[in-house]
Amino acid sequence: MHVIVVYDVSAERTHIYRKLLRRRLEHLQNSVFFGDLTDGQVTSLKNDIEDTLNSDDEVIVFESTNPAAFEFTTFGASDEPGSRFT
Amino acid sequence: MHVIVVYDVSAERTHIYRKLLRRRLEHLQNSVFFGDLTDGQVTSLKNDIEDTLNSDDEVIVFESTNPAAFEFTTFGASDEPGSRFT
Repeated sequence: MHVIVVYDVSAERTHIYRKLLRRRLEHLQNSVFFGDLTDGQVTSLKNDIEDTLNSDDEVIVFESTNPAAFEFTTFGASDEPGSRFT
Repeated sequence: MHVIVVYDVSAERTHIYRKLLRRRLEHLQNSVFFGDLTDGQVTSLKNDIEDTLNSDDEVIVFESTNPAAFEFTTFGASDEPGSRFT
């Protein structure tokens, strides 16, 4: 399934999440990661996030179980506007 | 459809995007907005983003046309872990 993970953590903890999320996801922007994972990988990712979390961190995991119904468009500096995948 | 918008812009331009996105979406986290929009509202939102964009801004719009196949889970400080809607 398609997965988007965004986090809001203190600057000194950013590297922890980058390292964790880069293992399985593409680094799209700032604190935004995206990827295509199996159910098992999503469960494992959520477990890793729970293990990593401290009291000030906030992490949101979005999941779309129907990839055909999901798309994204990037506007701005690093890419031409346009769907990055279909 | 479900829409997630994330932006990566300079600090002094943050308020411009907050104002634009708060018109139609819920402010979930930091630079992350979420909402349920019609096709027309999504088109209008994308037009507004293109009009707002300057050369250093980056904005990503994620769309899921099948809300039944879409969910999100929040971990951390502000909410108990758990699906925020079904």
